[in-house]
Amino acid sequence: MKARRLIKPKRTSDKAGMPPESLVFVGEQKIEKPVITVFQYNAEHSDDREYTLEEALNVQTTPDKITWFNIEGLHDVELVHKLCDKFSVPALLIEDILNTSERPKVDIIGDVLFIVLRMLWKDEKSESIITEHMSIVLGKDFILAFQEGILGDVFQPIRTRLRTGRGKLRKQKIDYLCYELMDAIVDSYFGILETLGDKIEVLEEDVLVQPQTELLRQLHDLRSDLLNVRRSVWPLRDIINNIQRDDDTYFQKSTGFYLRDLYDHTVQELETIETYWELLSGLQDIYLSSISNRMNEIMKVLTIITTIFIPLSFIAGVYGMNFKYMPELDSRYGYPIVILVMLIISFIMIRIFIKKKWM
Amino acid sequence: MKARRLIKPKRTSDKAGMPPESLVFVGEQKIEKPVITVFQYNAEHSDDREYTLEEALNVQTTPDKITWFNIEGLHDVELVHKLCDKFSVPALLIEDILNTSERPKVDIIGDVLFIVLRMLWKDEKSESIITEHMSIVLGKDFILAFQEGILGDVFQPIRTRLRTGRGKLRKQKIDYLCYELMDAIVDSYFGILETLGDKIEVLEEDVLVQPQTELLRQLHDLRSDLLNVRRSVWPLRDIINNIQRDDDTYFQKSTGFYLRDLYDHTVQELETIETYWELLSGLQDIYLSSISNRMNEIMKVLTIITTIFIPLSFIAGVYGMNFKYMPELDSRYGYPIVILVMLIISFIMIRIFIKKKWM
Amino acid sequence: MKARRLIKPKRTSDKAGMPPESLVFVGEQKIEKPVITVFQYNAEHSDDREYTLEEALNVQTTPDKITWFNIEGLHDVELVHKLCDKFSVPALLIEDILNTSERPKVDIIGDVLFIVLRMLWKDEKSESIITEHMSIVLGKDFILAFQEGILGDVFQPIRTRLRTGRGKLRKQKIDYLCYELMDAIVDSYFGILETLGDKIEVLEEDVLVQPQTELLRQLHDLRSDLLNVRRSVWPLRDIINNIQRDDDTYFQKSTGFYLRDLYDHTVQELETIETYWELLSGLQDIYLSSISNRMNEIMKVLTIITTIFIPLSFIAGVYGMNFKYMPELDSRYGYPIVILVMLIISFIMIRIFIKKKWM
Amino acid sequence: MKARRLIKPKRTSDKAGMPPESLVFVGEQKIEKPVITVFQYNAEHSDDREYTLEEALNVQTTPDKITWFNIEGLHDVELVHKLCDKFSVPALLIEDILNTSERPKVDIIGDVLFIVLRMLWKDEKSESIITEHMSIVLGKDFILAFQEGILGDVFQPIRTRLRTGRGKLRKQKIDYLCYELMDAIVDSYFGILETLGDKIEVLEEDVLVQPQTELLRQLHDLRSDLLNVRRSVWPLRDIINNIQRDDDTYFQKSTGFYLRDLYDHTVQELETIETYWELLSGLQDIYLSSISNRMNEIMKVLTIITTIFIPLSFIAGVYGMNFKYMPELDSRYGYPIVILVMLIISFIMIRIFIKKKWM
Amino acid sequence: MKARRLIKPKRTSDKAGMPPESLVFVGEQKIEKPVITVFQYNAEHSDDREYTLEEALNVQTTPDKITWFNIEGLHDVELVHKLCDKFSVPALLIEDILNTSERPKVDIIGDVLFIVLRMLWKDEKSESIITEHMSIVLGKDFILAFQEGILGDVFQPIRTRLRTGRGKLRKQKIDYLCYELMDAIVDSYFGILETLGDKIEVLEEDVLVQPQTELLRQLHDLRSDLLNVRRSVWPLRDIINNIQRDDDTYFQKSTGFYLRDLYDHTVQELETIETYWELLSGLQDIYLSSISNRMNEIMKVLTIITTIFIPLSFIAGVYGMNFKYMPELDSRYGYPIVILVMLIISFIMIRIFIKKKWM
Repeated sequence: MKARRLIKPKRTSDKAGMPPESLVFVGEQKIEKPVITVFQYNAEHSDDREYTLEEALNVQTTPDKITWFNIEGLHDVELVHKLCDKFSVPALLIEDILNTSERPKVDIIGDVLFIVLRMLWKDEKSESIITEHMSIVLGKDFILAFQEGILGDVFQPIRTRLRTGRGKLRKQKIDYLCYELMDAIVDSYFGILETLGDKIEVLEEDVLVQPQTELLRQLHDLRSDLLNVRRSVWPLRDIINNIQRDDDTYFQKSTGFYLRDLYDHTVQELETIETYWELLSGLQDIYLSSISNRMNEIMKVLTIITTIFIPLSFIAGVYGMNFKYMPELDSRYGYPIVILVMLIISFIMIRIFIKKKWM
Repeated sequence: MKARRLIKPKRTSDKAGMPPESLVFVGEQKIEKPVITVFQYNAEHSDDREYTLEEALNVQTTPDKITWFNIEGLHDVELVHKLCDKFSVPALLIEDILNTSERPKVDIIGDVLFIVLRMLWKDEKSESIITEHMSIVLGKDFILAFQEGILGDVFQPIRTRLRTGRGKLRKQKIDYLCYELMDAIVDSYFGILETLGDKIEVLEEDVLVQPQTELLRQLHDLRSDLLNVRRSVWPLRDIINNIQRDDDTYFQKSTGFYLRDLYDHTVQELETIETYWELLSGLQDIYLSSISNRMNEIMKVLTIITTIFIPLSFIAGVYGMNFKYMPELDSRYGYPIVILVMLIISFIMIRIFIKKKWM
Repeated sequence: MKARRLIKPKRTSDKAGMPPESLVFVGEQKIEKPVITVFQYNAEHSDDREYTLEEALNVQTTPDKITWFNIEGLHDVELVHKLCDKFSVPALLIEDILNTSERPKVDIIGDVLFIVLRMLWKDEKSESIITEHMSIVLGKDFILAFQEGILGDVFQPIRTRLRTGRGKLRKQKIDYLCYELMDAIVDSYFGILETLGDKIEVLEEDVLVQPQTELLRQLHDLRSDLLNVRRSVWPLRDIINNIQRDDDTYFQKSTGFYLRDLYDHTVQELETIETYWELLSGLQDIYLSSISNRMNEIMKVLTIITTIFIPLSFIAGVYGMNFKYMPELDSRYGYPIVILVMLIISFIMIRIFIKKKWM
Repeated sequence: MKARRLIKPKRTSDKAGMPPESLVFVGEQKIEKPVITVFQYNAEHSDDREYTLEEALNVQTTPDKITWFNIEGLHDVELVHKLCDKFSVPALLIEDILNTSERPKVDIIGDVLFIVLRMLWKDEKSESIITEHMSIVLGKDFILAFQEGILGDVFQPIRTRLRTGRGKLRKQKIDYLCYELMDAIVDSYFGILETLGDKIEVLEEDVLVQPQTELLRQLHDLRSDLLNVRRSVWPLRDIINNIQRDDDTYFQKSTGFYLRDLYDHTVQELETIETYWELLSGLQDIYLSSISNRMNEIMKVLTIITTIFIPLSFIAGVYGMNFKYMPELDSRYGYPIVILVMLIISFIMIRIFIKKKWM
Repeated sequence: MKARRLIKPKRTSDKAGMPPESLVFVGEQKIEKPVITVFQYNAEHSDDREYTLEEALNVQTTPDKITWFNIEGLHDVELVHKLCDKFSVPALLIEDILNTSERPKVDIIGDVLFIVLRMLWKDEKSESIITEHMSIVLGKDFILAFQEGILGDVFQPIRTRLRTGRGKLRKQKIDYLCYELMDAIVDSYFGILETLGDKIEVLEEDVLVQPQTELLRQLHDLRSDLLNVRRSVWPLRDIINNIQRDDDTYFQKSTGFYLRDLYDHTVQELETIETYWELLSGLQDIYLSSISNRMNEIMKVLTIITTIFIPLSFIAGVYGMNFKYMPELDSRYGYPIVILVMLIISFIMIRIFIKKKWM
């Protein structure tokens, strides 16, 4: 298993020396061709299908309909640029949309509310957590949702609800759709945390029962994962707070209640992360103690064996000397007496060890 | 003994993709059949008995009486739903009532004040701490108290007081009943903390006297327990603060004094938790030091024995060589002289060890 | 030496299920019979003697005199109750007076200002720090001071000053007496801290010179003591702040300056505690390092002895073999040559060890 | 490799006893001769070339042009002094310009806004991070940028943009130039952080695979580097905040949006630093655990070998004794039986070790 | 070297039971006889000489002159008392002037602004840091500066500037003199910090190269020193803040700029302390790791030697047995074959060790 990648902010190295608002895609291309899906719905009906860039640029947004542009794949800078231009998204925001290492944040500029989020999902193969960049541009009657490309399925239930008209989604204003997108992402963190919690529980048993170097690596990987998750969840608290405090154009009063619910979930996730972090720190200490414990066990065995046999070997050595005049050697009972003495010595030694609780 | 369960937020994995206000029971069923108990009282008299759902739905709440619905068992979603509908509790709150992993919080929505708490009790068998979800819906003249099912006995004294009319409970308004319910739960934490404190005191002795792997596990379990308790108590401070600050509909001015008392107790519990946490961290370090200490003791024994006997054995080995021309071997006093030399060497060695305080 | 007692909040376990304002004494009885001493003084004269409960209840408080009831011994619930009733102290406060595990706090309720403090003193015999509960009820012209029973001597200088009229105490209002009582307690903490500081200085030397298990226990005891002291001092900051901010009935503007002085002392004590805590943490790490260091020393001795003699013993063993055809054995110079070889080998070994700085 | 230099504030030792506003250069001279470059530009054209001090002092600044004086090299105190005098920069600011250990800060005094920043760059040879002092004096229509001398190339792209007129720089007011200078510096931190992140990833592998003393040094160097970076980045948050909050003379409303972007980058950098710090702390613990692990491995080998052969050697020793009457020695099958016994003993030993998972 | 003294607050133990405003000198006498120096100056001329108490009490302060009383030596309580009485300094402040363990603070009472500071200087002999108490009483046209007695030389440059009239000191108001006194003290901390920084750099090298117990003591001493410095610098931030916020009587608006500069220096010092603290914590961990590393090295040597020679010795032992029927012994090639076998075994062992990277 390879050590996970850190989330490294990639700004400078890739765009060093460019003017502040340069439009360059920063990150790895995760999808072959960008896909634009457009939803247009109101309480009565809902249309959706895949659009070409041409078609997307010609879509008319009207106040009586909510239009949701969902773009998967960010490496086609021109496509992103043109779509943003259509809705007069400022250049600095486009830069943030294209920079996949951007920190989650919210900005209210010009005519749009702009949200950057980070999507997390577990890579089944490598068991590691993968982060994905996602940005939402919320206008009066449209939403642009830019994704790196793979996380699509988190929004699947929202799409289904739009199509079938179940739930209250279709009856609500556009801010509710924005809330549902954010809610889908925040909710998905719970799954990640549960996976991490399960791993910690497994580690807890293993560390206490048989400490091995492999566990050390797992501990370290879990710490890195937790740090990554924290970096994704932490800014969300401020984001939701800021929306609630500063905005009265895009989010209606009535949606405030849902935002507070979202906020509660974020706090719960952060607390869980904190608890996991404490547990992992504890486990690392326990690992160290376990190893020391094992060393003690080994040392005891070594000491017991050595301490019993070295004096006995010495006695044998003495009577193995070739001095001419060693009266004991000629004695008829020399041998059995020496063997007896050896037995007594080892018996005493063992008694001492038992008393010291080494055996 | 198995490692304790972490409190894992279970939201997504169980309800992934559902619309935000889906009503699903999240948790383990802890009671076979839900039990609804209804109290109706005022200063003069108090009625209470078990109700069927039908009866409960037909109960009339009147301003001159306080009505307390106590529901044990949350897995019957429909029952909870119908009862909440009767009092027009918003759907998002019902979702929180049904999610047993919800974080403690307070919300004032529509016509009710909504409180989520977490009950703790010690499982006598497994010695672990079990958490239980509990939510209170406070209306103008009714209280709905939803419990997972087993913690009933914490409220027993309140019931007795209602029946007998002792104390000032029956003479007070409904906010005082709500306060008493919260107080019963907060007070029960003290017992949990005392149990943990006793365990820590026992561990303190053990860690210093005889460090063993078993203690390591106990330390870790205590840390997990403390983290769980902290997660349950921590949000209470904010909850009480919020009620005091934001609410002037449900809680009267005069109850403020009792809330402040409750707040003081919460702070005292948090301080105790903090102190215990510090002590446990200290104990873990002491455990590690104790093990190292013990290793030192073992190493000393090994070194003393080895250092005394290896040179002696070497001497014996030398005179065990079979060279033809070894003049000492033929000497009349060779043997006693060698024995004497050996005695002198061991005497010197022992002196050195005593001087180094190894013996 | 026994491990110290933690300050455990004892509320529930002793009073589980009682209504919130139950009047029960929680703690250990520390004095045989409660003693009531009453001081009545003004700038001109001062009376004081021991009163019976009867007499105490009949004392008339007048605005031109300050009356200080000092009650030592809290286990006589009825006595406390009656005295408090005389001055209409609310039931919830009486509960706090009787609960010796109550956290320090201040409350302004009804007609009184209520302060809970914790007194600390060093038990000469067990060397441990004992905490005692103390509460002050400050009315317009009276002070009730409830003590557990033994700490009396901290107030002795105040009594002497009242009797002799030295200092400005008799000329001041009642808030100044209250300040002096608090000041006496806060000042006494300095003594405790100095004792702890002395112990830390002794430990510092010992840990570096000769690390022993006994030190580990002392370190742990000091940490527990510090935690207890911190829990007693910490809330004082808020208490004094709250009095300064919220109260304009009981404390005069002119006493504010003295309160600020008290506050400064509290902060100074907290900083000292923090510093001691850091030093103790450092000492624990040093202890661990010292032990590892010692282990290194021991290992070096073992390794040197073993490494020198095992090869020599092997050589001796070789020439102790009984093969018929071993030409060296018959050589005239076999024995001296082998001895020479052994000397050379040990000389080289010693050189290597000296170069590695092991000797 | 030599241990890195700490950033040590150098004020006193070099200027002890001087009056507060003494003008002395504090630091190491990093360039031979100071270089003054002057840019004068507006939307239409842009002039720039190297100036002598004489020429620079004669430059006329006019409201219709933006003049940027860039001074590389600070050791010529008189030069700095004269230039500052020309724009009536207060003496205390000149002191800060000349003190290369000054902490990053912002000050609005008299007619100028004064910013101190710290530039970071990686020394390719020593692999260490070098900090450089830089100060910006922003007036109504001029900017003085003082650099220690080498970091010039970070501003290169800005110069190019000024010359070519690409981007919106030339069309903007002077506050935008100031923002671009700050942005160039903040952006350059990302590169430093990425380098550090790469090193951490390499260390992660190494620590787990083969812990060596060299890694310990690398860990320590990385920690020092991170601390240095943090000290440079940390104050930037406050600086940008202060500019946004306090200033309405030098920075226009419209530039606020860019400042917020700058602020976001600073926060992102601080978070990255925090994460790296946590990872490094974890790595240090892992290093310690790895070493203990290795020691365990070594001890196991030692114990296995010793425990198997010492008893066998003892048996051989016994039958090497020279007693006259040892019946086994004369037995025909004595030798093969002893060899068999030895084999059985070692077989049992090995079984035990395998069961204990030591082999 | 003796362990440093902690800064222990000495209030109670020395003055237990005294009324709050008792005037007792608390500390060690550091100078034989108190010295009073009086400066009287304005922009035109400046007088200064040593005064007797009599003379000092007769000095007339006038608004057109600034009078600075500098008192070195605090043990003469009466002298301090009389001087303070002359300027009606409140008794509680005199108490603070006399208590050398008082925490740095600022108070505005009656007609004076009162500042307590702590002076630090390095004792050349013991290499430890010595703290000294210093208090400033700032009135309308006079300053009383009380020093314990030795730190005089920090103010020397100020005296010289007063005498010579260099700098702007003589032209400024009295608050500027007060600022210069504080600035001299704050600036002197930089020197202390630089000394500590140098020691840390030396330690960094030593800990990595050769960990010894002596280093442990040095680490601990540095930690204690840093804690002491932090306790002296920390309160300064609040002091300066309070002066800026609360005072408009003693400090003029125009001096605010200098105070802000002082504040910046204090913050810079605190950051440096924080960084040093982190580095020291890291060094302690590294020390522990280094020791473990060394232990590993020693263990490897021991294990290699033991593991090679113990099996060989065993073989030698086998052929040293005295059995009558050992066919190998009589073989012509027994001896050379055994020697060969031994060589092969040791060769294999060495190969294994090299492969395991133990050699």
